[in-house]
Amino acid sequence: MEKIRTRVQIKHELGRALLGEFVGTAILVLVINTVVAQNVVISGTSKNALININFGVGLGIALGVAISAKLSGGHINPAVSIGFLALGQLKPIRFLLYYLVQLAGAFVGAALAYLVYRDAINVFDGGNRAVVGSKATAGIFASYPAPHLSAFGGLVDQIVATAFFLFFILHFTDKRNHYPSWTQPLLIGLTFVTIGTMFAGNAGYPCNPARDFGPRLFTFIIGYGTKVWCGDASYCWFWVPIVGPLIGGVLGAYLYQFAIGYHIPAETEYEVVVTRELQPLTKEGEVVP
Amino acid sequence: MEKIRTRVQIKHELGRALLGEFVGTAILVLVINTVVAQNVVISGTSKNALININFGVGLGIALGVAISAKLSGGHINPAVSIGFLALGQLKPIRFLLYYLVQLAGAFVGAALAYLVYRDAINVFDGGNRAVVGSKATAGIFASYPAPHLSAFGGLVDQIVATAFFLFFILHFTDKRNHYPSWTQPLLIGLTFVTIGTMFAGNAGYPCNPARDFGPRLFTFIIGYGTKVWCGDASYCWFWVPIVGPLIGGVLGAYLYQFAIGYHIPAETEYEVVVTRELQPLTKEGEVVP
Amino acid sequence: MEKIRTRVQIKHELGRALLGEFVGTAILVLVINTVVAQNVVISGTSKNALININFGVGLGIALGVAISAKLSGGHINPAVSIGFLALGQLKPIRFLLYYLVQLAGAFVGAALAYLVYRDAINVFDGGNRAVVGSKATAGIFASYPAPHLSAFGGLVDQIVATAFFLFFILHFTDKRNHYPSWTQPLLIGLTFVTIGTMFAGNAGYPCNPARDFGPRLFTFIIGYGTKVWCGDASYCWFWVPIVGPLIGGVLGAYLYQFAIGYHIPAETEYEVVVTRELQPLTKEGEVVP
Amino acid sequence: MEKIRTRVQIKHELGRALLGEFVGTAILVLVINTVVAQNVVISGTSKNALININFGVGLGIALGVAISAKLSGGHINPAVSIGFLALGQLKPIRFLLYYLVQLAGAFVGAALAYLVYRDAINVFDGGNRAVVGSKATAGIFASYPAPHLSAFGGLVDQIVATAFFLFFILHFTDKRNHYPSWTQPLLIGLTFVTIGTMFAGNAGYPCNPARDFGPRLFTFIIGYGTKVWCGDASYCWFWVPIVGPLIGGVLGAYLYQFAIGYHIPAETEYEVVVTRELQPLTKEGEVVP
Repeated sequence: MEKIRTRVQIKHELGRALLGEFVGTAILVLVINTVVAQNVVISGTSKNALININFGVGLGIALGVAISAKLSGGHINPAVSIGFLALGQLKPIRFLLYYLVQLAGAFVGAALAYLVYRDAINVFDGGNRAVVGSKATAGIFASYPAPHLSAFGGLVDQIVATAFFLFFILHFTDKRNHYPSWTQPLLIGLTFVTIGTMFAGNAGYPCNPARDFGPRLFTFIIGYGTKVWCGDASYCWFWVPIVGPLIGGVLGAYLYQFAIGYHIPAETEYEVVVTRELQPLTKEGEVVP
Repeated sequence: MEKIRTRVQIKHELGRALLGEFVGTAILVLVINTVVAQNVVISGTSKNALININFGVGLGIALGVAISAKLSGGHINPAVSIGFLALGQLKPIRFLLYYLVQLAGAFVGAALAYLVYRDAINVFDGGNRAVVGSKATAGIFASYPAPHLSAFGGLVDQIVATAFFLFFILHFTDKRNHYPSWTQPLLIGLTFVTIGTMFAGNAGYPCNPARDFGPRLFTFIIGYGTKVWCGDASYCWFWVPIVGPLIGGVLGAYLYQFAIGYHIPAETEYEVVVTRELQPLTKEGEVVP
Repeated sequence: MEKIRTRVQIKHELGRALLGEFVGTAILVLVINTVVAQNVVISGTSKNALININFGVGLGIALGVAISAKLSGGHINPAVSIGFLALGQLKPIRFLLYYLVQLAGAFVGAALAYLVYRDAINVFDGGNRAVVGSKATAGIFASYPAPHLSAFGGLVDQIVATAFFLFFILHFTDKRNHYPSWTQPLLIGLTFVTIGTMFAGNAGYPCNPARDFGPRLFTFIIGYGTKVWCGDASYCWFWVPIVGPLIGGVLGAYLYQFAIGYHIPAETEYEVVVTRELQPLTKEGEVVP
Repeated sequence: MEKIRTRVQIKHELGRALLGEFVGTAILVLVINTVVAQNVVISGTSKNALININFGVGLGIALGVAISAKLSGGHINPAVSIGFLALGQLKPIRFLLYYLVQLAGAFVGAALAYLVYRDAINVFDGGNRAVVGSKATAGIFASYPAPHLSAFGGLVDQIVATAFFLFFILHFTDKRNHYPSWTQPLLIGLTFVTIGTMFAGNAGYPCNPARDFGPRLFTFIIGYGTKVWCGDASYCWFWVPIVGPLIGGVLGAYLYQFAIGYHIPAETEYEVVVTRELQPLTKEGEVVP
């Protein structure tokens, strides 16, 4: 084993990081697309299934972040990367490379999800891949706006939702908050569950330019037609979940610093208390010591 | 404050323990009865609401155990107490006293739940408290069997469910498993969420003689009539969620010891590894260190 | 970065605390109002969506408490602040200032939620903002009683629910219980999930005078009319979720101390056990060491 | 007690391990089969109940892994064991023995579930045990493909789902990731909740040859007839949830190593940071220190 490791291991840190972002984003999109597929082509788009989608998507983010954390820092989202870029914690060239492999990972994740649900999609739409109508399945892969949503409303939705996401990513990963490493992917995932309960009704809360554009490109290539870019709305949608999250990512990162981060007292104002478990002197029959 | 504490504090450990069991069981029953009330008189008994009930009840157990853990060990259930009695970890007299205050706490919890939902119940049943029929509300407080359930089936249900519960309570509180104290009430609550997804369809998974009999007595006293004892089934039900859990509690405690507990290697076979957090040397832009 | 910090950081501890309460309460109300908005104007008020609302609201509380904890202690609720006031842990002037910024934060959170859901609300009600009727949307922002609920019943509901909340906030933050810092916002959020499963059916469990009055004032200002104060009930409702929670907050704080807190043994009765992870000597193929 | 332990304890490590796998798999199948039974014969197969099934099954895995972790490593699934076999962490003879007791445990778990739900199944199907049709109950115990699923699609589903599962089991149990022991069964269970939200619609995500074949054999023996092997599909199904997971288990184990594991930097590249809790100097009225 150790021999294989030595031969296989990518020596350059950047190479490992790009691999991590690729794998993490592929996992993320595989989860999100299959979760939505199940609701579109099998369970029906029952509104009550929202909680099932929200938890599936949130856990998908937790798993994608966890798997890539040690290699790349677990961004798996250009909106997260641009937030760190804005705060000077990521170099521009690295941001661009991350963005590229995130897109590639998202594309592969969508293809995997398609592989898993091809039988079901075929029976559902009779082989006629559609972006709009009652047998539309393009929404499995990329986001489309609800009928009530204007282009401006969509942009607001994506900016606010992504800023909210970055705001808490920065909180949970701020070393001064001392969240144990293992909790961070889970807490980021739970934040996205919250975002699902808040924003799902407008446009399916993509909040991630790679997660949205990669699968959209995939649907275009496999024959969903040009409607994947503009759907049936009076405006083109595809750029909204790209531009909105990128703006929201920068906004959320700054908001965290100016509203919270810069004001947290330095740790010298704190006293260190070593963690310890206290257990009462033995008493009979106690369940929780 | 410190002065009040000195004057108020119960000096005798047993007194504090009985107070803990009383408060914890009252909390438990307040949660369970209001959770079910909401589904019976307001949301309707929609089956899809099962997950809402399961989480509400499980969290109620977690909260009840947590609040009483330091004073009494957090049993809040005679079936749990009898399990510890069977293993020689609780004295018989203490078991009896625990049982009594658990019953009293359950009675008070039911009364509190009734206070909160009296308006809703009055509108729902027009002031006519019923145990059976489409306007029955007795099921808010105590358990009643589903129409398909025989007396024997009910006994099996309660024995298996409660043995399952004790089996995992002993696992989570076994010191050799090193579950941090703060996790134990939550894990016991999650075990009961699981039990809800497993057993709810038979008789509402009471698994607790105090939680069931206390509220049942309360409904009898406030005028639900003698049907609270035998309902409309061809057999009397009320003794099943008393006898079943007490048998299941003993069975589950022994099962844990004979199937798992006695076989866990002594800790001398283990090497001690001090917990530590590892953080990579600073890299730019990483979310999860 | 360090330079910006030095220039931006609020030097006075009270200033930082008020900022924390403002931001935390705004986050809280943004979450709660968007979660409810999604159910009112998009998913429909399907009862089965209760679990989705309960988790959304509970996670919103967890996030709001977490983000403000280091700056202000994470009250984000006058009922919580008055509880600490009653126990002598918060000065009266500080209580008043907290209350004011909590109200301001709640107002801003409601405005943000309105911004996000304006398109959807416009399509839903045709631009006719209503407090009652099938197209009413005022319930997105502030609480309104269910038809069955009397003024007295509403007061009982809010007192019991908020006392329950404070009871467990004090438990989870009691230093003697040694809950790790990072778990406390989550456990407080889970307590509120529980409260949602218990009390949602009466009046939507506001349990927070700022969270309720701030958004109510916002709806009054943007044109929902005077019905936001008294709705269609035979009594005025708006004061109930102010007075009830304030009473409940004081009651819950005292209840915790007298029923539990004062009776927890001093730590000198405990032996200190240093936390450690035990790992078995290497065995082949084991999943969980 | 100590005396009984000495007499009862299985002295040989392999014997204890086989006991652990037997008990853990029995627990797992008892949970999964009762969870599904509740939905099939009592709640109806309402699609909205998916979240209830997903959490029940995921928690069942968490409990089964937790209870057997110290004795056997908590595989309770031949697909997990074959993954460790492929990585050279389990000897072939041990793999075979694990597989056998996992099958036996699954059989016993199914029998227990049948005992608990016999009344309900009898009322539901009038005593006529059926594999297909509106009164079919065989799906309580073993998996059957959805009508849209081809044999190839089913194989893809089981390979991808199980590879996903192993991928994350290896992540969570990789010592270099320092997940605390107590979190590992829970995180493995949450991974399976995610798999439920992703794959449930195709064939009920068995992902475990023992969990599927043991109960299938049980249904054959108690009189469901030969249709349990091939159902009503144009192809035989029973071998798919055996072969698919075994392939997926090996694939997922290698994928983890080649895509992630081999690239994680050695710990010498990390600096050790001792975990500590920081608590601010006492300030008045703070909830979360």
